[in-house]
Amino acid sequence: MKLWQQKYQLNKQIEAFTVGNDYLLDQKLVKYDCLGSIAHVKMLNKIGILDKTESDKLTMALYEIIKLDGNKAFIIKQEDEDCHTAIENFLIKKLGDCGKKIHTARSRNDQVLTALRLFYKDEIKCITELMDNLIKTLVAIKQKYGSVEIPGYTHMQKAMPSSVGLWAEAFAESMNDNKLLLLDIFKLVDQSPLGTGAGYGLPIEVDRETIAECLGFSKIQKNPIYVQNSRGKFESTILHGLSQIMFDLNKMASDLLLFSIPELGYFQLPTEFCTGSSIMPHKKNPDVLEIIRAKYHQIVAFEFEIKNNIANLISGYNRDIQLTKKPVICGFEVTKNTIQIMIKVLAQLKVNKIKCKNAMTKELYATDKVYKIIKKGVPFREAYKEISQEYETT
Amino acid sequence: MKLWQQKYQLNKQIEAFTVGNDYLLDQKLVKYDCLGSIAHVKMLNKIGILDKTESDKLTMALYEIIKLDGNKAFIIKQEDEDCHTAIENFLIKKLGDCGKKIHTARSRNDQVLTALRLFYKDEIKCITELMDNLIKTLVAIKQKYGSVEIPGYTHMQKAMPSSVGLWAEAFAESMNDNKLLLLDIFKLVDQSPLGTGAGYGLPIEVDRETIAECLGFSKIQKNPIYVQNSRGKFESTILHGLSQIMFDLNKMASDLLLFSIPELGYFQLPTEFCTGSSIMPHKKNPDVLEIIRAKYHQIVAFEFEIKNNIANLISGYNRDIQLTKKPVICGFEVTKNTIQIMIKVLAQLKVNKIKCKNAMTKELYATDKVYKIIKKGVPFREAYKEISQEYETT
Amino acid sequence: MKLWQQKYQLNKQIEAFTVGNDYLLDQKLVKYDCLGSIAHVKMLNKIGILDKTESDKLTMALYEIIKLDGNKAFIIKQEDEDCHTAIENFLIKKLGDCGKKIHTARSRNDQVLTALRLFYKDEIKCITELMDNLIKTLVAIKQKYGSVEIPGYTHMQKAMPSSVGLWAEAFAESMNDNKLLLLDIFKLVDQSPLGTGAGYGLPIEVDRETIAECLGFSKIQKNPIYVQNSRGKFESTILHGLSQIMFDLNKMASDLLLFSIPELGYFQLPTEFCTGSSIMPHKKNPDVLEIIRAKYHQIVAFEFEIKNNIANLISGYNRDIQLTKKPVICGFEVTKNTIQIMIKVLAQLKVNKIKCKNAMTKELYATDKVYKIIKKGVPFREAYKEISQEYETT
Amino acid sequence: MKLWQQKYQLNKQIEAFTVGNDYLLDQKLVKYDCLGSIAHVKMLNKIGILDKTESDKLTMALYEIIKLDGNKAFIIKQEDEDCHTAIENFLIKKLGDCGKKIHTARSRNDQVLTALRLFYKDEIKCITELMDNLIKTLVAIKQKYGSVEIPGYTHMQKAMPSSVGLWAEAFAESMNDNKLLLLDIFKLVDQSPLGTGAGYGLPIEVDRETIAECLGFSKIQKNPIYVQNSRGKFESTILHGLSQIMFDLNKMASDLLLFSIPELGYFQLPTEFCTGSSIMPHKKNPDVLEIIRAKYHQIVAFEFEIKNNIANLISGYNRDIQLTKKPVICGFEVTKNTIQIMIKVLAQLKVNKIKCKNAMTKELYATDKVYKIIKKGVPFREAYKEISQEYETT
Repeated sequence: MKLWQQKYQLNKQIEAFTVGNDYLLDQKLVKYDCLGSIAHVKMLNKIGILDKTESDKLTMALYEIIKLDGNKAFIIKQEDEDCHTAIENFLIKKLGDCGKKIHTARSRNDQVLTALRLFYKDEIKCITELMDNLIKTLVAIKQKYGSVEIPGYTHMQKAMPSSVGLWAEAFAESMNDNKLLLLDIFKLVDQSPLGTGAGYGLPIEVDRETIAECLGFSKIQKNPIYVQNSRGKFESTILHGLSQIMFDLNKMASDLLLFSIPELGYFQLPTEFCTGSSIMPHKKNPDVLEIIRAKYHQIVAFEFEIKNNIANLISGYNRDIQLTKKPVICGFEVTKNTIQIMIKVLAQLKVNKIKCKNAMTKELYATDKVYKIIKKGVPFREAYKEISQEYETT
Repeated sequence: MKLWQQKYQLNKQIEAFTVGNDYLLDQKLVKYDCLGSIAHVKMLNKIGILDKTESDKLTMALYEIIKLDGNKAFIIKQEDEDCHTAIENFLIKKLGDCGKKIHTARSRNDQVLTALRLFYKDEIKCITELMDNLIKTLVAIKQKYGSVEIPGYTHMQKAMPSSVGLWAEAFAESMNDNKLLLLDIFKLVDQSPLGTGAGYGLPIEVDRETIAECLGFSKIQKNPIYVQNSRGKFESTILHGLSQIMFDLNKMASDLLLFSIPELGYFQLPTEFCTGSSIMPHKKNPDVLEIIRAKYHQIVAFEFEIKNNIANLISGYNRDIQLTKKPVICGFEVTKNTIQIMIKVLAQLKVNKIKCKNAMTKELYATDKVYKIIKKGVPFREAYKEISQEYETT
Repeated sequence: MKLWQQKYQLNKQIEAFTVGNDYLLDQKLVKYDCLGSIAHVKMLNKIGILDKTESDKLTMALYEIIKLDGNKAFIIKQEDEDCHTAIENFLIKKLGDCGKKIHTARSRNDQVLTALRLFYKDEIKCITELMDNLIKTLVAIKQKYGSVEIPGYTHMQKAMPSSVGLWAEAFAESMNDNKLLLLDIFKLVDQSPLGTGAGYGLPIEVDRETIAECLGFSKIQKNPIYVQNSRGKFESTILHGLSQIMFDLNKMASDLLLFSIPELGYFQLPTEFCTGSSIMPHKKNPDVLEIIRAKYHQIVAFEFEIKNNIANLISGYNRDIQLTKKPVICGFEVTKNTIQIMIKVLAQLKVNKIKCKNAMTKELYATDKVYKIIKKGVPFREAYKEISQEYETT
Repeated sequence: MKLWQQKYQLNKQIEAFTVGNDYLLDQKLVKYDCLGSIAHVKMLNKIGILDKTESDKLTMALYEIIKLDGNKAFIIKQEDEDCHTAIENFLIKKLGDCGKKIHTARSRNDQVLTALRLFYKDEIKCITELMDNLIKTLVAIKQKYGSVEIPGYTHMQKAMPSSVGLWAEAFAESMNDNKLLLLDIFKLVDQSPLGTGAGYGLPIEVDRETIAECLGFSKIQKNPIYVQNSRGKFESTILHGLSQIMFDLNKMASDLLLFSIPELGYFQLPTEFCTGSSIMPHKKNPDVLEIIRAKYHQIVAFEFEIKNNIANLISGYNRDIQLTKKPVICGFEVTKNTIQIMIKVLAQLKVNKIKCKNAMTKELYATDKVYKIIKKGVPFREAYKEISQEYETT
């Protein structure tokens, strides 16, 4: 039974195609859709559509769904299309006419946006906490190995002296900037869309402030067309924010992969983090770092899929947008998972002090020599030339 | 029990992260991996690693797995990592020492490539058949409605007379070119990788011709490093081929979406293909066309994920490549599914002859007027100017 | 004469390839590099590397370059590689030893980042002003045509009543959110990188606060490795910010293109904004809107190029990053230009009130009917069903 | 004076925006557009639109333009919009009425496609020749250093013995497959579009076979809507083909960058191919390889831009497509240039035999040990386990 059910039956193949895996993805949204509906019910009571009894019944039934969902006992079926339908059907079955009133003063279009944003806000909070843990782990590395010198590279060639501490601190500072950006994105997303209907408002006065306050949104997104047009846009911004985090993990993994080849050997993964080869008995492979590295590309692909999916289309809801749901949900999942694994790897990372020390060869100090001469008053460019002669190849 | 199992245990979290959903995706490859192994066994018998009895036992056991898999009774577990491990474990459990010999003269690296290519070849064949069906459906539209005139558009503005037949034929010719390109890609993929080991050959003489012939590959991919480096490359080429098909479906859907807005109304979808709105009782929405349109972007995102995943990496197997499996497997799935749905839509598409006729307004014939003057000997550019004056806005 | 000139000569073809078009792009950076150097000179004086006379001479010479550049008389040659070299060469030629001291306590790596960020900050400011103008233009449309009703569309089908005012306001609110995001990005970029050398600090104490303050940066980016790793990252974030603006222009253009086809005709472009056809004398094409629409994809491609260019690479400066310069410089150019053109188009846009009125057909009010029944106490879902029967197709 | 010039003047700013840099890019197409026109003139003579004298005059004038263009003396101005206009204006100025006839039986839409495809065909031929040279250079490396052993890597870790010859051969075989794919793409592009007008045919009978034959196209692209819809599609396929070449260069560069870090040192670039640092006097940086690596991402971004630019649009010419011109023209330029530079690098590449020899440490032979035991009849998996014990970490 669909929300829009009419006398005809939707063709089964078309149904399967248009619903796609939405009914599975929507399991993640059940809780958030119920929370959105609870606020909506409160508002409907306030504006007189629902009386107190109806409002209480609906609210209790919605909490019941949240509980069922928590026990994995609220299952959305393909013919339900999505969580919104499954929930309304449940309410109507349980409460009759009272359930039939809940969709007053809203459309699925603003309803799904509400659920998604509540979900996004929770996910972003969760990710910022993981970022804090990652930063702590990096600080711990700095404290433990900070003074161990390693070569600093430019163009993949030894450049100047660096240290394990400098390396760890670089990612801590970067991750902090990533966090600030993500919090700015949180502010963008933190706008209440409920009460804008299908994108052109509603033929009834809605108390949008009550809903927004109830749901903890810090402001109302006013224009109903903008509400619809922002779907996909906000998601692409979220994914951009995630891509910045994942980029740092990609770079950390790239560093660790190079710095842990035996020929350099500055770092070492614990054996139980390494996999073997089906043919070569000596291998201990750092697969975990390679997969961390590769995950960045998933996130970037998610972002770009959304950015192109939504382009060249007119304003207002277009069903194309349904395909933005998976990239953003998976984007959060991948990011959370990858940060957690990176924390685990970093926590166990070993530094081989002897290999580090041996790697500190003299060309790394060529620039120091230049500055020694400078201190005697020689202009930089002259000092540079003087020292560079030591390295001329003939 | 992993193929590379050693005394230590791989950390569980790292295992879950590195395996990802490979063990699920690999269900699609069980059959192809068995077929690859059957050819490999034949070759091992030929070069004396397996005797006749061993070879027969292994072959029978592999066919047993194929049969189990056909009945969805051969299930790969996460701790198996992938289908290759699950299959070798099955063989060892069932046949003992004989099973322990099957991995002679190969590595998982060339083994997985073999299974994937056999799979790709089947999928490409399947898609070319679907393309043929799509072309037939377009030809049928041409036959049925070919002579119905509709406006031809440039810049989304009425340009010159077109027809339903011309429209349908355009996509038939295009789809035929897509097919030729896909068959060229088939030729590229149709190279046997088995017998190249982990990417640097094998310390044993292998009869690669026997394997290739057995598996129906039309040639051998010789260089073992190239074999590894082509993973990801071939996949990106396949996805490019699929993107060309999906682009045409995207454009067909875009045309149908515009041409079926009531304001134009040249085409009409059957009601049972349309969905309704949760709030607006009058709506019959062409969601199916919007989702067809959007699916193009999934395919393009898959292609670009792979193209970037594999970049900036050195030669030889890198585990990053594991993440190319899902995009290509899903790419086939999405493409097959979308073509099928488009065939269904086209087969039921209605043409509203009255609306088409009314749309054939006189400005569409402005160019005809120019050519009438030309036939009197007036140079084109003069004739053009003369007629253009009729359309000057003042 | 290169900054790193040694006895050997760089191969000419290799030089041309590695320099690329940097020497041309860098013309945009001359001013900013001089400003960076002026602050650097002040700091060098403060820490005793330069005396007052030297410092004054260098500062005056740098202002001279800024003036020359303003008159397009400071030309960077290919053999100079970039603006930094051209400027240092000028200073050495003019001031001798004094010029040879200016590169003390910095590397080209932190120098170029400084110039780029000063440039970015100016460009972002310029774009936010353009956004304000765009918002004003949209508000003016709302004031002029606000009450004119037009159909609101979902799924490209008539949904509910909308208005020109609602449409214009949607983009004004959206553009305001784009502005907030861009200002957040400004904050990210507004960090001083100068004084971090090639990515691993300097063998001399640098007063980074003085430089940062002098240049108007609101904070110091501390870790020298992070400074280098943030190149490309910041650029991708800027381009993401620009893509959000361009997306709105893409959508506005998509709306206007559809709403101005004669079959709908709600909007009309002035004739002098339209181009004709080489063959069809009646055509007045809205090319300007199509190109606005298409420009979005340039920006997204720029962002995407950078995001992939910088992936899978180790920390520290890699020359690959040079290729991020063009996308970001062009990204600003395209965005500024496109906003300006859109403002021009919007300012001249005509609304055809008669066509708008005629388009307000009765199905647009189906939802209103539902709500009329609701007001009698009928539950929403019942009211919906009742009205939907009017639209059942038989 | 535009081809479509009417009484009103196109707004200057709008003109500059819509023309963009087309008038500059089109300099590359002047020759090809003239060749297309020469064939078109021949056909117009055949169907009686032009008499012999007119046809000869036009042909001579077109060859004159080709000659002027060869001397860089045929300059397209912004107000000309493009090469087609500049050429028609030249012909009309020189030949009067005769010039005014040349646009009979064509539109700019099919004309530009013709010029582009002739250009593409020449560029593809040029690139296949460069690929042949690259293959020859790789074969020469194999001949010179083929037997020098180097470690083969998987997961960036030493795996099994490889050799300089095996490495060079891998890219030769791969490049050969790239060539086959590019030749398949050539076949796709090698279709004559001329005679299809603006996308909906022409109100005059055209002899398309004569034109196609004259221009050396191997077949006619029949359907006029398909002709227009294939613009962008063909370009994306060309760029995909180029991306495959560039990917191999990216990987070669990645290999060389790693294999030439002093810590490994298998390969060495000649000094005159290396650049220095502005601060570190000892540096010899392999910038050339980094830029080769990075160029791949330009090509992928070009492909991606086109693929998204053309999506979600209806059939027939849309001006958006103009923005596909630059990516494809630059794509050829970048690819040709990068192959040439890679040939130069490879031709001068030095192999350090001592470092190679020292790198052949014993774990590279672990698999050989396994196979030695196998030859005694021990099953592979047992032999693997036995040897793996030697590498257990405790």
